[in-house]
Amino acid sequence: MRTLQVDLGERSYPIYIGGGLLGKAGEFFENHQLSKKSPVLLVTDEHVAPLYLETVESSLQASGYTTVSKVVKAGEKSKSLDVYEDVMTTAIEGGLDRRSAVVALGGGVVGDLAGFVAASYMRGVPFVQMPTTILAHDSSVGGKVAVNHRLAKNMIGAFHQPEMVLYDVDSLQSLPPRDVRAGLSEMVKHGLIWDAEFAAWCREHASELLALDPEALGFGLTQGCAIKAKVVSVDEREQGLRAILNLGHTLGHAIEAIGGYGEFLHGEAISIGMAAAAKLAVNRGRDAALYQETVALLQRFELPTAMPRHLDEEKLIGAMMHDKKFKEQQLVFILPVAIGQVEIVSDVALGEVRRVIAELKEEEPHV
Amino acid sequence: MRTLQVDLGERSYPIYIGGGLLGKAGEFFENHQLSKKSPVLLVTDEHVAPLYLETVESSLQASGYTTVSKVVKAGEKSKSLDVYEDVMTTAIEGGLDRRSAVVALGGGVVGDLAGFVAASYMRGVPFVQMPTTILAHDSSVGGKVAVNHRLAKNMIGAFHQPEMVLYDVDSLQSLPPRDVRAGLSEMVKHGLIWDAEFAAWCREHASELLALDPEALGFGLTQGCAIKAKVVSVDEREQGLRAILNLGHTLGHAIEAIGGYGEFLHGEAISIGMAAAAKLAVNRGRDAALYQETVALLQRFELPTAMPRHLDEEKLIGAMMHDKKFKEQQLVFILPVAIGQVEIVSDVALGEVRRVIAELKEEEPHV
Repeated sequence: MRTLQVDLGERSYPIYIGGGLLGKAGEFFENHQLSKKSPVLLVTDEHVAPLYLETVESSLQASGYTTVSKVVKAGEKSKSLDVYEDVMTTAIEGGLDRRSAVVALGGGVVGDLAGFVAASYMRGVPFVQMPTTILAHDSSVGGKVAVNHRLAKNMIGAFHQPEMVLYDVDSLQSLPPRDVRAGLSEMVKHGLIWDAEFAAWCREHASELLALDPEALGFGLTQGCAIKAKVVSVDEREQGLRAILNLGHTLGHAIEAIGGYGEFLHGEAISIGMAAAAKLAVNRGRDAALYQETVALLQRFELPTAMPRHLDEEKLIGAMMHDKKFKEQQLVFILPVAIGQVEIVSDVALGEVRRVIAELKEEEPHV
Repeated sequence: MRTLQVDLGERSYPIYIGGGLLGKAGEFFENHQLSKKSPVLLVTDEHVAPLYLETVESSLQASGYTTVSKVVKAGEKSKSLDVYEDVMTTAIEGGLDRRSAVVALGGGVVGDLAGFVAASYMRGVPFVQMPTTILAHDSSVGGKVAVNHRLAKNMIGAFHQPEMVLYDVDSLQSLPPRDVRAGLSEMVKHGLIWDAEFAAWCREHASELLALDPEALGFGLTQGCAIKAKVVSVDEREQGLRAILNLGHTLGHAIEAIGGYGEFLHGEAISIGMAAAAKLAVNRGRDAALYQETVALLQRFELPTAMPRHLDEEKLIGAMMHDKKFKEQQLVFILPVAIGQVEIVSDVALGEVRRVIAELKEEEPHV
C-alpha cells in the first residue's frame, strides 16, 4: 500500500492506494477515530453497489459501525439538486448526526454528490472517499465537491476536504474500457500541466495502463494524485495556481453541457479541450509540435481530439460564458507552454475560440 | 453609527449599526473593495422589496455596480431547496462570477437563504448582510446559513461569514408588532445566556424596545450582537461554547417544525423553549425563582411561555430526534444555571422532556 499525504494544515489528509482496501474499511475508520455512536452513510451508484457495497458495509459493521446506504443511478444526471435532496432525506431518516461520516463509494459523480452532502448536511460532517474509477484519482483529491445546475456544470458546491481517501485499485479491474480511457485522460493531464517526465512515462506505458496492469496503474495513480495534491496544497481555494488543473476544461465543460452531460464522458470532453488548448497556444505563436505531440499522446490512449461537427459553435460559446472560469467578463484559458508546463491566460478573444472550434471540426474525419 | 468587529482571524468582519445605511450601500461596497466588474445579486422578499430594494439598487448603481435582484415570498417556506434553486438560476442568468457579492436584504429567512446561496454558488462567493428585522441581529452574526429540509429545520447549510453586515435601524420602524416581539426574544436570549446586567436592562426597557425607540434599539441591538460575536469568535464552528446560543432552540425548533414553519414565529417558539429550559432546570434542582423570573421577563415582551395544548407530544419528541442537536443518540439541552448563565447538558432523559411538555401545557389558559 502506498500512502500519500495531502498537505493542507489542519485539513491535511492521507490517500491510501493499494489492493484489498475496501474490505478493511472498518479498520481505517477506527484508526481515524470516526465515531461509532453515529450512523455512517454510504453513497454509491447502481453499478458499483452490487460489486462493492456489501464488502464495505460488512467491514464497517464488523468494526462496530452502523451503516445506512443510498444507491443512486449511475451517471452525471445524479449530480442534480433532486438527487442531492434524496440523499439528504436518507441521511435524516437514517439518524445521521454531526459526527456521522458520509462515504462516497464510486466514481467522480458519487464523490461530488456525496461530498456536497457531507459539506452541507448539518453544515458539514466528516467525508470519506472510496474511489472506484481511474477518473476519481483526480476528483478525490482537493476537496472540490458540487452538483450541477441545469444551466451549468458544478455550479453549486463547496470546498470540503475528506478525512481520508481509500483507493482500492482492485476495484478498477471491473471498469468498462471506455471509462478506463476517459479516466486516463486526467492522468495524462497531470503530466501535461506539471511534469514532462511523467507525460513521457504515460506515453511509454499507455498499453499497460489501458490493460489495467496493476503495477503501472499503481504508479500512475500515485503520481497523478501527487501532482494534484501538490497544486492543491499551494492553492486550496483556487485563487491562482490551482486553475492550471483546468487545462482542457473551459471548452471541455461546454462540450459536456451542450451534449446534455450524457453524450461525452468527462475525460473525453477534456481530451478535446486539451487538444483545443494546444491548438490555441500554437495559433498564438507556440511551436506547431506542441499541438502535434499533445494530440499524439492523447491518441495513444484512444481519446478523441477532434471537435464533433454536430456541436453548435454558438451553443459552445454560450455554455463557456456560464462557466465559473468566466470571471469579470473575461474567458480564462489554461494554455500549454511546452509539454509539462502551462500558463493561465485571461485575454483570449472570442474570435480565437471560434477559430479553434472550426479548426478542430476540420480534424474530424468526414463520414 | 456604531461599528462592532466580529473577530474571526482572516474571516473577521464588521457590523455597522445606525440610521440611513441602506442609502449608502454603494460607499460601503467600495470601501470593502468589492468588484465592480462582477454583477451583484440582491436577494429580498416581497415585503421588504417595495420598501428598500430600490434604495439599495440605486446606491450600488450610483457607485458603478450592476445589480440583479431576486424577490422571494416572505416567510420560512422560502427556506426550501426549491427556492434556493430559483435563486441560483437568477445568479447564473445574471452572469454572477466568483467575485460577485450576494446580498441578503431582509430578515433571518432571506439571510439564511441568500447566505447558503453565497456559500455554495461556484463553491462560495462574497456575502453581505443587510438585516431589516430585529430577529436578524442574531442570525446575521456568526455565519450560520441554511435552508430547511421538509423533515427538519436548518438541516442543509454551511458556515459562511459575511464580508460585512449593514444594519440600518431605520428599516426596523416598518416592522409589524408581532415581528418586533418575536425579534426581541433573541435579544432577551442573549441576556439570559451571558449577561445578567443586560437581561435586567432588557426588562427595564421593554416598553421602549417594543415601541421601537431608536436609542434603546441601537443600544440593545449592539449589545445583543456583541454577545453573539463574542461567543462565535471563541467557537466559530459550534464545537463547544457556541451551543449556548441554542437556549430554547431544542424544543423551539420542534415546535416550529410540527407547526409547519407557519403557525409560530421563530422568536415565539424559542420563547416557549426558553421557558421550558428553565422549567427543566428547576425540575433538576435549580431554584424555582429561575423559572419565574425567566417567564416574567419573556412576558414583559408579550411573548408566549406556555406550550399550546394542540401540539402533539410524540410529534414534538420525534422532531427533536431529527434535530442537529441530537448527537450520538443523545439530546443536548442548554439549561439555565441563573439569569445570565447557562450550561450544556447532554444527559436529559426523554421522560424529563415529556414532563416539561405536560407542565407547560398546563400553563396555557383553558379557553
